[in-house]
Amino acid sequence: MMRTRPLKVALLGCGVVGSEVARIMTTHADDLTARIGAPVELAGVAVRRPDRVREGIAPELVTTDATALVKRGDIDVVVEVIGGIEPARTLITTAFEHGASVVSANKALLAQDGAALHAAAEEHGKDLYYEAAVAGAIPLIRPLRESLAGDKINRVMGIVNGTTNFILDKMDSTGAGYQEALDEATALGYAEADPTADVEGFDAAAKAAILAGIAFHTRVRLDDVYREGMTEVTAADFASAKEMGCTIKLLAICERAEDGASVTARVHPAMIPLSHPLASVRGAYNAVFVESDAAGQLMFYGPGAGGSPTASAVLGDLVAVCRNRIGGATGPGESAYAALPVSPMGDVVTRYHISLDVADKPGVLAQVATVFAEHGVSIDTVRQSGKDGEASLVVVTHRASDAALTGTVEALRNLDTVRGVASIMRVEGE
Amino acid sequence: MMRTRPLKVALLGCGVVGSEVARIMTTHADDLTARIGAPVELAGVAVRRPDRVREGIAPELVTTDATALVKRGDIDVVVEVIGGIEPARTLITTAFEHGASVVSANKALLAQDGAALHAAAEEHGKDLYYEAAVAGAIPLIRPLRESLAGDKINRVMGIVNGTTNFILDKMDSTGAGYQEALDEATALGYAEADPTADVEGFDAAAKAAILAGIAFHTRVRLDDVYREGMTEVTAADFASAKEMGCTIKLLAICERAEDGASVTARVHPAMIPLSHPLASVRGAYNAVFVESDAAGQLMFYGPGAGGSPTASAVLGDLVAVCRNRIGGATGPGESAYAALPVSPMGDVVTRYHISLDVADKPGVLAQVATVFAEHGVSIDTVRQSGKDGEASLVVVTHRASDAALTGTVEALRNLDTVRGVASIMRVEGE
Repeated sequence: MMRTRPLKVALLGCGVVGSEVARIMTTHADDLTARIGAPVELAGVAVRRPDRVREGIAPELVTTDATALVKRGDIDVVVEVIGGIEPARTLITTAFEHGASVVSANKALLAQDGAALHAAAEEHGKDLYYEAAVAGAIPLIRPLRESLAGDKINRVMGIVNGTTNFILDKMDSTGAGYQEALDEATALGYAEADPTADVEGFDAAAKAAILAGIAFHTRVRLDDVYREGMTEVTAADFASAKEMGCTIKLLAICERAEDGASVTARVHPAMIPLSHPLASVRGAYNAVFVESDAAGQLMFYGPGAGGSPTASAVLGDLVAVCRNRIGGATGPGESAYAALPVSPMGDVVTRYHISLDVADKPGVLAQVATVFAEHGVSIDTVRQSGKDGEASLVVVTHRASDAALTGTVEALRNLDTVRGVASIMRVEGE
Repeated sequence: MMRTRPLKVALLGCGVVGSEVARIMTTHADDLTARIGAPVELAGVAVRRPDRVREGIAPELVTTDATALVKRGDIDVVVEVIGGIEPARTLITTAFEHGASVVSANKALLAQDGAALHAAAEEHGKDLYYEAAVAGAIPLIRPLRESLAGDKINRVMGIVNGTTNFILDKMDSTGAGYQEALDEATALGYAEADPTADVEGFDAAAKAAILAGIAFHTRVRLDDVYREGMTEVTAADFASAKEMGCTIKLLAICERAEDGASVTARVHPAMIPLSHPLASVRGAYNAVFVESDAAGQLMFYGPGAGGSPTASAVLGDLVAVCRNRIGGATGPGESAYAALPVSPMGDVVTRYHISLDVADKPGVLAQVATVFAEHGVSIDTVRQSGKDGEASLVVVTHRASDAALTGTVEALRNLDTVRGVASIMRVEGE
C-alpha cells in the first residue's frame, strides 16, 4: 500500500533541534519511508538568518518568510522548533488553516495556549503532536495519552529540568553550594547565561501544566501551577536531607486530590528518600514517575534536552502524523472532558521539614510544639541541637495542608524564642 | 463526533487479568466512553468453567463456546487473555476473519507466531495490539513502535521477568542462596509451583524475541534467542559481583551488531555495575533500558506482572483499537522491512568474569594467560588468592566474542593446573 507522492514537511526553525531533524530526515530517509509507508520530503526551512551555512540543506529550501511557507497549501506537516510564543502561535494556527498538521517542541506555547491550539487543530481536522515539549526524548506524552488511556492516573511526579538536576546532583555529591554548582553547570553548557527560566522553575512549571492536563483530562493553565525555584537550596539543606536518608530534587508534581474531585500542579524543591527511583536520577537526566490505579508505579527515564534527543521525539511524532495523514485519520486530540477544578497550593497535602533557629532555653520546644498543634499540624519527629545560647530545632511533620503549614510558620516567626526560620522543605515520595 | 452505537468487546478468558479488565470496563465506563468517543460494551465472556461465580459480570454474557463468540460477526474487538498457543491462536485468526480487531496479552503466542498473526491482521485490515505481552503495565511496545519510530535503536536491555528479579534481589540483599530465595518467592506468590518458565529464562526469551523484532524492524523467532537460566547463580557469584562494584540480574539483551548488518537476542544472568539504572530495580519490578542513535539512553520502569497492571496495558490497547475503528483506520502493523539476519550467540561481543580453581604453584597464571592470548581474548584484570595448595583465579576480560570465550574456557579445562571452572558470567552495561 506504498503511495508514491511524498509527504511534504515544512521546518520552522533550524537551530540545534531543527538542523538535527533535517539531518535525520536525510540520513534515515529509507527507514522513514518504510515506517511511514511513503517518502517524506523537506519542502522548506524557515530561518531568521538565511546567510548562515546549513550543511546538508539545499539553499533553495531556505526562506525567511515562514508565513508564506506555511500558507503554501501543499505542506502536509509543519514542524515548529522555533520556541517562544510568537510568531510560533500564529504560524501553527495558520498551518492548520492551510491544511497542514503540526509537530511542535514548544513547551512554553503549549502550556500557555494548548487549549486554543488543540481547538484549532480539531476545527480543521488536523493533528497537533508535541512529544518533544516535555522531557525531551523520553516517550512520555504518548504513553500517558495512549498506553494509560484505560487507566486512572493519580499522580505524576518528575524531574523535568536537566539544568537544575545537574546543579542539585552536583551539590549533593560534592557538598558544593548553589552558586558554585551553577557556575560549573554554566561552564559545561548545562546552564544558559541567564539561567532564570530553569533555576526559578518556569521551565518545569510549563511542563507540569502540560503533564497535568494530559494525566487528568483537565485543562491546566500555566497560572494554575504553583512555582518555587531552587536558588535558595543550601549545602545545609543537603546535610539535613542526608540525615533523613533523603536527597533534594526540583520536582514537578501533578496530583489528583484524595477525593478525586480536584487536581493540583506545583514545582518546588523537595526531599525524597534515597530509595525512591527518582533519587538516583543523575546529572542532566530527566525522569517522570507516574502512579495510576491499575498500572501502579511506572517511571520513564532519559535525556531531557539536547538536539539529538529532542529531534528523536520530533521524528517519532512526524512518523505518527504522516501515518495518520495517509490513513485519513487523526490521533487523539486534547482530552479535557473531566474538567476538574485546579485547587490552589494551600490545598496541597504533604509532609514538611522545617529548620528553626531558636533560643537555647527551657520551654522553647513546648512553645513550638504548641504552635504546630494549634494549627492542626501533627509532628512526626523533632531534633534539637544547641550551644552558646543558640540552638536549632528540626521538625518533620506528618501530612498537613500547605495552608496549615503556612499558618504555622507565620505564627512561629512571631514567637520571641524563634530567632528565624532557616528553611522549609517539603518531603515527597514516601 | 460522539457516535451512539457501542463498540462490542468479546473477552476470551476471565482469570486474574480478564476479570480485572471486565471490572475496569464497568467501573470506568464513563471515562472509557469519553476517551474512545463511543461507549464500549462487554458483549460476551468465554470461560472454561462457567459455573464459577464472576462478580460484576452478567451470567448471560458467559459462554464456554469461545469460537461461537468470536464468529458472531458483531464483535468489534476481541480481548484474548487466555494465554498459551492453542486455542488462542485459532481464536485470534478466526476473530480477524469475522471482522474483529484483537488485543492480546499472550507473549508465548506472539513470540512464536507473531509474523503469521500480523499477516492475518493485515490481510483483514484489522489491528493486533499486545502492549501487555511484554513487561506488563510498562508502556514499552507503543514507545518503541511509535515514539522512537524516527530513531534508530541499537540496544534493548531489560529485566523482563519479575520472579527472577525478586529472587536475585533477595540473594543480593540477604546473601541467601538460590534455593532459599526461590522458596521465599514461592511462599510470597512471586514464583509458581513449577518455576521453570521463569528461572530457566523461557518467559524472558519470549519477550526478548518480541522486543528485538520491534526494535530492529526484523523478524526474530523464539528459536533465535539464546537462553540461559539463573538457577546456577550462587552466593559466591554475588560476592564476586560486589567486589567488582556490580550486582547480578537476569537480562534480556537485543543488540544490533556494530556494523549494523545483523542483530542478536539473548537471555542470561549478567553482572552490571551498581551505577547502571537497571542495577537499582528491586523486587518483582521490571525495567527496560533502550539505547538509540538520537534519543540516547532511555529507561522504562514498572510492575511487570499482576492482574491490575496487565489489565491497564490491555485497556490502553483497547482504547487505541476502538479509536482506530471509529476513525476507520488501523495502527502500525508488523514492521519487518529491515529483515536483518539474526546472528548466533557466538557472534555476541561482551566482557566476561571467570572464576577458576587452580593449583597453587608457580607458573599457573602464565599458563592461563597464554590460553586467553591464544584465543584472542584480552585480559583486563586478574585476581589471585590461595591457601593450602589450592588457589582461585578471577579473570575479567576486555570485550571478546562469545565464540572466542567458549574456546578459551574449553582449553582452560584441559590444563592440568586448572582444577575446575567455578563460574563464567558476562559483564554488561559498561
